[in-house]
Amino acid sequence: MIGRSAERRIFSRIINGLTKFKCKRHSSTESTESWDIVPRKEVKRFIIECMSSVKTRQDHAEKLADNLSTADYRGHYSHGLNRLDMYVRDIDSGITERDGDPMTIKESQATALVDGQNVLGPVVGDYSMEIAIQKAKQTGVGWVAAKGSNHYGIAGWYAMKAVDHGLLGLSFTNTSPLEVPTRARKPTLGTNPLSLAVPAKDNDSFVLDMATTTVALGKIELHDRKQISIPDGWGVDSQGKMCNVAKPVIEAGGLMPLGGSEMTGGYKGYGLAMMVEIFCGILAGSDYGPNIRRWKSTERVANLGQCFIAVDPDCFAPGFIDRMSDLMDTCRNLTPAEGEEDVVLVAGDPERRHMNMCDQRGGIPYHPNQIKFGVGFF
Amino acid sequence: MIGRSAERRIFSRIINGLTKFKCKRHSSTESTESWDIVPRKEVKRFIIECMSSVKTRQDHAEKLADNLSTADYRGHYSHGLNRLDMYVRDIDSGITERDGDPMTIKESQATALVDGQNVLGPVVGDYSMEIAIQKAKQTGVGWVAAKGSNHYGIAGWYAMKAVDHGLLGLSFTNTSPLEVPTRARKPTLGTNPLSLAVPAKDNDSFVLDMATTTVALGKIELHDRKQISIPDGWGVDSQGKMCNVAKPVIEAGGLMPLGGSEMTGGYKGYGLAMMVEIFCGILAGSDYGPNIRRWKSTERVANLGQCFIAVDPDCFAPGFIDRMSDLMDTCRNLTPAEGEEDVVLVAGDPERRHMNMCDQRGGIPYHPNQIKFGVGFF
Repeated sequence: MIGRSAERRIFSRIINGLTKFKCKRHSSTESTESWDIVPRKEVKRFIIECMSSVKTRQDHAEKLADNLSTADYRGHYSHGLNRLDMYVRDIDSGITERDGDPMTIKESQATALVDGQNVLGPVVGDYSMEIAIQKAKQTGVGWVAAKGSNHYGIAGWYAMKAVDHGLLGLSFTNTSPLEVPTRARKPTLGTNPLSLAVPAKDNDSFVLDMATTTVALGKIELHDRKQISIPDGWGVDSQGKMCNVAKPVIEAGGLMPLGGSEMTGGYKGYGLAMMVEIFCGILAGSDYGPNIRRWKSTERVANLGQCFIAVDPDCFAPGFIDRMSDLMDTCRNLTPAEGEEDVVLVAGDPERRHMNMCDQRGGIPYHPNQIKFGVGFF
Repeated sequence: MIGRSAERRIFSRIINGLTKFKCKRHSSTESTESWDIVPRKEVKRFIIECMSSVKTRQDHAEKLADNLSTADYRGHYSHGLNRLDMYVRDIDSGITERDGDPMTIKESQATALVDGQNVLGPVVGDYSMEIAIQKAKQTGVGWVAAKGSNHYGIAGWYAMKAVDHGLLGLSFTNTSPLEVPTRARKPTLGTNPLSLAVPAKDNDSFVLDMATTTVALGKIELHDRKQISIPDGWGVDSQGKMCNVAKPVIEAGGLMPLGGSEMTGGYKGYGLAMMVEIFCGILAGSDYGPNIRRWKSTERVANLGQCFIAVDPDCFAPGFIDRMSDLMDTCRNLTPAEGEEDVVLVAGDPERRHMNMCDQRGGIPYHPNQIKFGVGFF
């Protein structure tokens, strides 16, 4: 367990680092117009320095920096700099290993089982996805499960690696218990995200990256801070009853599976969370379900389970990327619903918009409070 | 296209067949207590005879009979005898081939591409899943995509075949456009179901078998017949607006993706429907998305795309089925939510209950109207 004074010291390092950001103000019509623009390179440098300050091996720090800065660049601020303090704390307390290498402990032509050796999640995931990609090139499919891992950031970062090789990529991780199964009252499964990334023509791609709960906890916390009610289907109170007030959900309840209540298909989201857990903890032999340590606890090693799959579309019908682009463009060109002010999107489009905005503005916009206070803003 | 008189002739064959069922009345405390009990063997015989009457090859008729009777036995009445008229019509009109064999047209160590040759879906699926199983035994994973297929009944029938070999099974199919993507107004994707079946200890198993829409069309039709409103998140009207009246959804609107509106995560269900389409039509090179023929239309061949995956858990950490049983039993033993009258279930449990009830009563209970009118009841 990390002491109060150590924690203050780490935070202060992060905050000091952040104030050294080379920021520039930039105005635009976006709602982020008054935010501070930080070049992505600068975000990476800062993350690497923070991680180095707690003696993380250089290449491990670089992989984490790439993952977290990708999250912010894609507009998933909850999974970027916002979580840096957690990784710093995990390394500084010794709960996550600052050095070491994941190991392949079992292998078949199309599969591998990896022991992450308790190093940073992006190091375990990068290693595992690379194996999945190589196996997909050789046999058509690579399916890799990893135990002994840690928080691995955004699931899409791994799935997209396969797209760089012209392959389909999938990635899954189990997480700390936050989801209350249909009919139950206690958080038992995690938000258990899944990602599928698929190549299309002209560098276009489909990138689904979703939690199997209706929303992430951060979204409910934001409603609590703003003192506004939450919609049906987001969360339950300590008795397992659907609840429209954020506080009881955060303090003693939990998240609802995608689909919400039983009547609106919540049992399907619960089934999908189980699917992710089966591919991760149950296949890999890591911690799973309610046995995973509590969210942000550093009392014991995380021992998370993860799964990485790559599939070669060339092993199937010719013309894959043409059909893929046609399907995506068909959806994008659909007439929007009555009263809908925006166009129809496909998975990956909201992130593409955010990245284009960043490119135009010369960096990633951050809320001034995140620059000032450093951590835990989203 | 099939003429009116031919259609009446086929219906009459089916109805005549149904009246020959050896039914026995049985009383019980279930809500199905006044239903007619038909032994499963008798259901199969009837399906085979109906299909034979339109000259379906014997082994094709037997596979269909096994699939449809399994659906009814598991309590998925919408996908059993209820759909027999559609298969009979497809064969009788010549739109589906009554004879022929699926062909493997491309193969790698872990993958295969199958051309279903337009025979009945369960024949294509059975052939493809068998390949996936053999490849999983050899390389760890088998991933098979099929084009030129037809309606294949319940997705779980294929996934469960893998469980008989101690493997994980997955199955996916694209379907006629019924789902309206988030923000759009026209049905563009199908209900695109997915199934995952997983072995556990003592013949226990996890069987997720779900459409990626909130509900199937049949559920909305039932509400229309009963003249009751439908919950938020089930369907939209012709303008793409969420709608609580069944008729406009059925007549000119469409189904909402799992998650319902954008605020409650409907874009995730839309993303999952795309995932299923990518694994099916886009990988296999069959029809896909809005190009698939309309539901129950027999104007042209279906050319559906399907996907079948098997994974060998022995390629990963030892003790798989022990962890699997532990996770399932942990969920089952959770304290139910306040006011919840039933226990917490895992995917496959509702079907297990229905099968146990059938076993106790000596057959599958059917509503007297289904026995009387034969078809299209659910």
